[in-house]
Amino acid sequence: MPDPDAPHAARLSADVGFARVDLDRAARTGDPEVVFGQGKTPEQIVRILRTLHEAHPDHAVLATRLDEAALDLVRRELPEAVAHEAARAVTLGALPTPVGDVVVVSAGTSDGPVAAEVALVATVHGAGVQQVEDVGVAGLHRVLAVRDRLARADCLVVVAGMEGALPSVVGGLVGVPVVAVPTSIGYGASFGGLSALLGMLNSCAPGVVVVNIDNGYGAGVHAARVARAAGRSQGDHA
Amino acid sequence: MPDPDAPHAARLSADVGFARVDLDRAARTGDPEVVFGQGKTPEQIVRILRTLHEAHPDHAVLATRLDEAALDLVRRELPEAVAHEAARAVTLGALPTPVGDVVVVSAGTSDGPVAAEVALVATVHGAGVQQVEDVGVAGLHRVLAVRDRLARADCLVVVAGMEGALPSVVGGLVGVPVVAVPTSIGYGASFGGLSALLGMLNSCAPGVVVVNIDNGYGAGVHAARVARAAGRSQGDHA
Amino acid sequence: MPDPDAPHAARLSADVGFARVDLDRAARTGDPEVVFGQGKTPEQIVRILRTLHEAHPDHAVLATRLDEAALDLVRRELPEAVAHEAARAVTLGALPTPVGDVVVVSAGTSDGPVAAEVALVATVHGAGVQQVEDVGVAGLHRVLAVRDRLARADCLVVVAGMEGALPSVVGGLVGVPVVAVPTSIGYGASFGGLSALLGMLNSCAPGVVVVNIDNGYGAGVHAARVARAAGRSQGDHA
Amino acid sequence: MPDPDAPHAARLSADVGFARVDLDRAARTGDPEVVFGQGKTPEQIVRILRTLHEAHPDHAVLATRLDEAALDLVRRELPEAVAHEAARAVTLGALPTPVGDVVVVSAGTSDGPVAAEVALVATVHGAGVQQVEDVGVAGLHRVLAVRDRLARADCLVVVAGMEGALPSVVGGLVGVPVVAVPTSIGYGASFGGLSALLGMLNSCAPGVVVVNIDNGYGAGVHAARVARAAGRSQGDHA
Amino acid sequence: MPDPDAPHAARLSADVGFARVDLDRAARTGDPEVVFGQGKTPEQIVRILRTLHEAHPDHAVLATRLDEAALDLVRRELPEAVAHEAARAVTLGALPTPVGDVVVVSAGTSDGPVAAEVALVATVHGAGVQQVEDVGVAGLHRVLAVRDRLARADCLVVVAGMEGALPSVVGGLVGVPVVAVPTSIGYGASFGGLSALLGMLNSCAPGVVVVNIDNGYGAGVHAARVARAAGRSQGDHA
Amino acid sequence: MPDPDAPHAARLSADVGFARVDLDRAARTGDPEVVFGQGKTPEQIVRILRTLHEAHPDHAVLATRLDEAALDLVRRELPEAVAHEAARAVTLGALPTPVGDVVVVSAGTSDGPVAAEVALVATVHGAGVQQVEDVGVAGLHRVLAVRDRLARADCLVVVAGMEGALPSVVGGLVGVPVVAVPTSIGYGASFGGLSALLGMLNSCAPGVVVVNIDNGYGAGVHAARVARAAGRSQGDHA
Amino acid sequence: MPDPDAPHAARLSADVGFARVDLDRAARTGDPEVVFGQGKTPEQIVRILRTLHEAHPDHAVLATRLDEAALDLVRRELPEAVAHEAARAVTLGALPTPVGDVVVVSAGTSDGPVAAEVALVATVHGAGVQQVEDVGVAGLHRVLAVRDRLARADCLVVVAGMEGALPSVVGGLVGVPVVAVPTSIGYGASFGGLSALLGMLNSCAPGVVVVNIDNGYGAGVHAARVARAAGRSQGDHA
Amino acid sequence: MPDPDAPHAARLSADVGFARVDLDRAARTGDPEVVFGQGKTPEQIVRILRTLHEAHPDHAVLATRLDEAALDLVRRELPEAVAHEAARAVTLGALPTPVGDVVVVSAGTSDGPVAAEVALVATVHGAGVQQVEDVGVAGLHRVLAVRDRLARADCLVVVAGMEGALPSVVGGLVGVPVVAVPTSIGYGASFGGLSALLGMLNSCAPGVVVVNIDNGYGAGVHAARVARAAGRSQGDHA
Repeated sequence: MPDPDAPHAARLSADVGFARVDLDRAARTGDPEVVFGQGKTPEQIVRILRTLHEAHPDHAVLATRLDEAALDLVRRELPEAVAHEAARAVTLGALPTPVGDVVVVSAGTSDGPVAAEVALVATVHGAGVQQVEDVGVAGLHRVLAVRDRLARADCLVVVAGMEGALPSVVGGLVGVPVVAVPTSIGYGASFGGLSALLGMLNSCAPGVVVVNIDNGYGAGVHAARVARAAGRSQGDHA
Repeated sequence: MPDPDAPHAARLSADVGFARVDLDRAARTGDPEVVFGQGKTPEQIVRILRTLHEAHPDHAVLATRLDEAALDLVRRELPEAVAHEAARAVTLGALPTPVGDVVVVSAGTSDGPVAAEVALVATVHGAGVQQVEDVGVAGLHRVLAVRDRLARADCLVVVAGMEGALPSVVGGLVGVPVVAVPTSIGYGASFGGLSALLGMLNSCAPGVVVVNIDNGYGAGVHAARVARAAGRSQGDHA
Repeated sequence: MPDPDAPHAARLSADVGFARVDLDRAARTGDPEVVFGQGKTPEQIVRILRTLHEAHPDHAVLATRLDEAALDLVRRELPEAVAHEAARAVTLGALPTPVGDVVVVSAGTSDGPVAAEVALVATVHGAGVQQVEDVGVAGLHRVLAVRDRLARADCLVVVAGMEGALPSVVGGLVGVPVVAVPTSIGYGASFGGLSALLGMLNSCAPGVVVVNIDNGYGAGVHAARVARAAGRSQGDHA
Repeated sequence: MPDPDAPHAARLSADVGFARVDLDRAARTGDPEVVFGQGKTPEQIVRILRTLHEAHPDHAVLATRLDEAALDLVRRELPEAVAHEAARAVTLGALPTPVGDVVVVSAGTSDGPVAAEVALVATVHGAGVQQVEDVGVAGLHRVLAVRDRLARADCLVVVAGMEGALPSVVGGLVGVPVVAVPTSIGYGASFGGLSALLGMLNSCAPGVVVVNIDNGYGAGVHAARVARAAGRSQGDHA
Repeated sequence: MPDPDAPHAARLSADVGFARVDLDRAARTGDPEVVFGQGKTPEQIVRILRTLHEAHPDHAVLATRLDEAALDLVRRELPEAVAHEAARAVTLGALPTPVGDVVVVSAGTSDGPVAAEVALVATVHGAGVQQVEDVGVAGLHRVLAVRDRLARADCLVVVAGMEGALPSVVGGLVGVPVVAVPTSIGYGASFGGLSALLGMLNSCAPGVVVVNIDNGYGAGVHAARVARAAGRSQGDHA
Repeated sequence: MPDPDAPHAARLSADVGFARVDLDRAARTGDPEVVFGQGKTPEQIVRILRTLHEAHPDHAVLATRLDEAALDLVRRELPEAVAHEAARAVTLGALPTPVGDVVVVSAGTSDGPVAAEVALVATVHGAGVQQVEDVGVAGLHRVLAVRDRLARADCLVVVAGMEGALPSVVGGLVGVPVVAVPTSIGYGASFGGLSALLGMLNSCAPGVVVVNIDNGYGAGVHAARVARAAGRSQGDHA
Repeated sequence: MPDPDAPHAARLSADVGFARVDLDRAARTGDPEVVFGQGKTPEQIVRILRTLHEAHPDHAVLATRLDEAALDLVRRELPEAVAHEAARAVTLGALPTPVGDVVVVSAGTSDGPVAAEVALVATVHGAGVQQVEDVGVAGLHRVLAVRDRLARADCLVVVAGMEGALPSVVGGLVGVPVVAVPTSIGYGASFGGLSALLGMLNSCAPGVVVVNIDNGYGAGVHAARVARAAGRSQGDHA
Repeated sequence: MPDPDAPHAARLSADVGFARVDLDRAARTGDPEVVFGQGKTPEQIVRILRTLHEAHPDHAVLATRLDEAALDLVRRELPEAVAHEAARAVTLGALPTPVGDVVVVSAGTSDGPVAAEVALVATVHGAGVQQVEDVGVAGLHRVLAVRDRLARADCLVVVAGMEGALPSVVGGLVGVPVVAVPTSIGYGASFGGLSALLGMLNSCAPGVVVVNIDNGYGAGVHAARVARAAGRSQGDHA
């Protein structure tokens, strides 16, 4: 029982903070520290960011899924932080040198925040990143116009809501690894992104893999790992 | 109670057969008589076909969703019937003069039986019909190669399983009415065609309408009605 | 990465605006420009409407799914726009000459906004449109009273929530193409319109096709295309 | 543990048979004994029927959901039993004097077995029962033709698959209690009867109640109870 | 198109008001007029109530699913209306003489509003009604204590949320018709009442029928019809 | 009908309060009284707490799922109550002497409130309880570091959201009873905790049992019962 | 790659057999070895049983979910094995001395195999076990008749299909830990046991925990662990 | 209409065979030709394999999802083909030189066929591949024992059924790209692999991506592309 008035119940691990745990994880995987802001108060986010930054002064710390209140407090309390409004995120500390080539493809403007999150997360995780927007299934000429660019990437991330068909179209044009990100954009029988998720899981294009709905973070991490491994001996394609 | 040993319970409508009801419907809607074979015995199918044909000797009667046993019995008992194996169906009586222009587009060979059913149903309902096969989302060049042909149709029917993305791609290229038919082709998270159905319902292409999973019949009827209305003053495009 | 402070990441397609893309689409399909207002700010909606109208001064531009704030700003900033309150939409520019005959049938007053959106969208897409309201499954006399009118239409759009049975009843009475629009009206096991959607997909009436829940836009586009094709040689039925 | 070689584990209630329990229930509710045949071997069904009949020689015992093998064995072993093939059921013992007026309405022939089960169950539970078949939503004239008959019933049971719209139509015409029975007839997005079930639960007609998919038994019991109570002072309407 | 500035589109049925339709329905079924308040503005509710009351001055009119604002406006504008706060409803006009015996059983206090709605609706529809509260599955002594009372009813309505087990327990004790009403009370895997709904549909007690989640109205109408028919020759049991 | 102006309808059980019923339950099961605060007003909660406390002055009464308003009113009206903020709960009266050893394991800080509820409920139900936090599947070293502690418990409760994998990992390390509590923490395809719930139900570790999403109460009661039975002859392990 | 003709791909863990892994697990948790027979060939089952028995000659090995073919081969190849037909399982080796008191409660005969599996698994895991059958929610007298016996148990396991209400009824009568096992018995909206599972997860009785559908194994392991801990100082209750 | 007796309907693309299309695709993506055997007859599979092999004599052709009949016919008709029984697949033609390092991790033996398919597909697509089996979440020591090997891979593929927790555990230990493959292994609430799929999509480990249930093919293609890109400058790690 977690209350001081219940002396027979004590916390076994009272002094284990998130920072120590995360340091372990950083050493283990090579990834930067990331704070998932959703469900945390602005004060908690600022405090965690500050602690992590002090522990890792030499590389970037990232906080995602920040609402306006959190962005405001970070700006005031951590003026050295860089706010990435499109991605609803902030970074603190120097970004790594980009390695490899991730291209993030998205269709509608509503998918923009998730696409921006993918791009930022992959950047913070060490990849070179470019975004290609306004590429819709219902306007194939846009896809075809950038086909050669897409085919040169080390990893593609394709972000789409509604029926989630864009990864199939892109995946049929190129031979590089494709990560599909379903978004919750849609209404009615989109069921909060379920339709896009199922569409991507059933893609007829080979080699398309999928992450959770609106999970720009997971897609960015995967893409960055792929691009870093591919790019070490190749330099940036940009 | 439907048993003879229970005299207090009698059937109110004992003499109302399917034929009379269907005649009413034919008079009402202009559609031909159709027998949905699934769940009926071969003997029932033959008997219904014969009765309907005698009642409508001057135009075609159609039976769909026939398995091998039903097809065999129809061939033996009704030698004047025409078996359409790809569509798992038979027709009995002269087909109507085709009016208008329906094009049925499908991707994989597994979607073939449903596409063939669409084509046959639309033909029996009075439309001119052509099929375009091997058109997959993951191979855009095939779609683009037939774009002009598709844009000339009075009504397009697009048949696809798995992620069901083909109607979105086709619907983005043309300005004609598009009917999407999800098929049960797929596995795992296709959930028997649910994934394709949801994808089509959420299509980002304007004007795409959808029918039930594997419902080639419904799509064929709708397309034929659209094409007949459009084609009356235009002649056949073929 | 989309941030100016991250010079290694640049937007590939920074100058590609929605207008140019939409112009392509208009040329391709013959449809007018439409702004889907849901999820956009009033300022964005006004700006897009103005841009599209300047690009297409000679035919109507449509914005749908507008809330009160968006309607207000449009009225102030674009006084030449026409607000269609029942449909929660505005048009800007001259409506096309109506061709063909679409009839929009709806049951309860709660389904009214979706029915009004269907009617407006079909009008903007060039069809002649009429609405028939107060037609419920639980009051068959109303359906029967308008049966002849329905049977003369080039395309029927039937809007219903709850169990979604109205399209089956209407579809059994006539031989014209029927588009069913499920609405999210209901509670409990209606699951936000899923019940109506499933009911319409499983309709026992032949030739009924379905769109997404509350998708008055998609139904209006499809119906207008059907009516225009049918009506070109027939004139208006009204 | 239920094995004789495990002496430390014994059955607490070894001698409690189903008959004694059922006798309790019969005394408690006034219902006859019913054997749910699905999942039982033909031998078990015969043995239970015989035991129940010996315990209740003066009124009917019913077994439902019998397959061909079970029906065959019952015919051979219990020649005094009456087989009701349409309802896939048998009765043993004299049926009760019918009281009140249940009308069972169904649409397609595929719904026939469930409708027949409703009729038989209601009969065995003491109601007067009539069946009205071939009444489909897509053929309203049939519904209207029997409207007066339906309005005179003490309780209506409406059996339908696919979109399950018939109870809404019937319920809108009459003021008597309506029990809706969804059937598993359909395919694709009918999801084994789920579509019909949801449609009936969301019926816009007042006073429609629903039972499980294919649950002709439950509907028959409810309807018989309603009709018996209503009919005690009124005699049979037939 | 429903706008005055679009002269080519006119409303076919502009003058058909709800009152006339409802009068038809009242004549057809014998039910009183009912206004479903959810989704309507307080002003609409008051206006409809007043119109219906003027059309039916000699019997009660009912409005259900009223929020505080609607209740307030009704109190101010229609002082002769009676507010039933527990049921979130109002009546206007004299209630009918009660016939027959409906007992409404509910468990937790959270199910109270739905149970009160059932009771009020059944009363307005002409039945004699009593409520039994605080009867939970997890406290069988309360069920057993009222068993004789329940067994004397013409119709039982059992209201429960969470696992929805109460109708099974009640249905196993008595031989009268039982209507089960699932409520949306619960959390997590209750999925807004789905768990209770499924539990009731799968009840092992014979003769239990079910309505939509929180549908106190439908249960009340059905129960009143059953009780009125049963009670006409028996008088009130209370 | 529950209204005073409807004299023919009276409440059968008007004077049966919750306290008497709960006293029955306490005598029957040995559990303390618990108030489920969700859906109750602060005033109702205070009144119930006071009544129960007066009826049971010698042992603790618990109220769970309290929001800020309810906590505030309890603090003001019942100053002798102890607020447990992490668990969103209050207790009133002396806690029982702890018996046995329950360990509550949780991963992220977002799962904290549910874990705290488990711990408090188990304490109030008489168990000795300890919490172990910050134990995530993606950081196995933390699990392994406390393995010996976990293996000594009489009952483990493992609280996790998202994919709900922690109970499988813990259950594979120890031979004690494990209760898994899925939380609603997550987004997208977590579907409000459904993903964690399904993961725990399908756990490959033997002997893992599951409660409803966020049901810290149920897990705490079960664990306390297990620990009390195990601990009576063993004393506290702490 | 697992093929000998692909030398660049080798199995990293070729010599790691199931036995060694399982020995680890046995040492770790104190549980016996168990073979999950479903999906394995009779030959595989016999081979695994033999290997495990040779490794653990001094205590029982269990195989569950055996079909007739597997049971036959085990009987022929391992004559010293004991077949438990009701539980579709076999044991090999001496059963442990029973400790503590598990009571397994089930309703219908269709739930029998799962209940028998629970009983056998708990026995093999060292508990004393008794079964109580024919205890249905719709026949409360049976539950009440065994109430005292149930209240004395260390752990109750309640097995039920359909609506899964029995655990709520039992859990409301006693204060001991209750494990609920939903079975796949039912039809239609039981959705293969989902209805029973949801009902049990939402049980209003405190302290009820749940396992997967038909998971007699998991329930038996949990119950045995609870009973062993409780029984060590108490002796057997039988 | 696709029948020769219906001359007004002709196939637009009669001569477009699969081979030509596939050749296009091979040129476009660099992937080998793959035949998805499920749903095809053994004769079709042999014919397609032969055609593709003749078109691509210099590199491997793969056929997956073959049942026993298909494997038998391939062995007889194409003796130069290599059957990979564990993967239910065959290859025809020389395998490519392996580049990079894919490790396929799986838990139970039931997941073996999917894991073998992953390994074979990745090999045929040009990667170096190793398998690690018997790695279960409920036996962490096995995971930890191979941790260093896993951390050295270019891409990990983790195959698991039931709760699908293994990718989370593995993903928490390493910093390389992880592809999770849910399998349909399980029962009850595993819902054919849905539980594992949801678990993997909600993984708390960063960078885990997911494919469709049992989609070893998609995972193998993605992993091979990642490994080839990473391995080009590094050589094989084996």
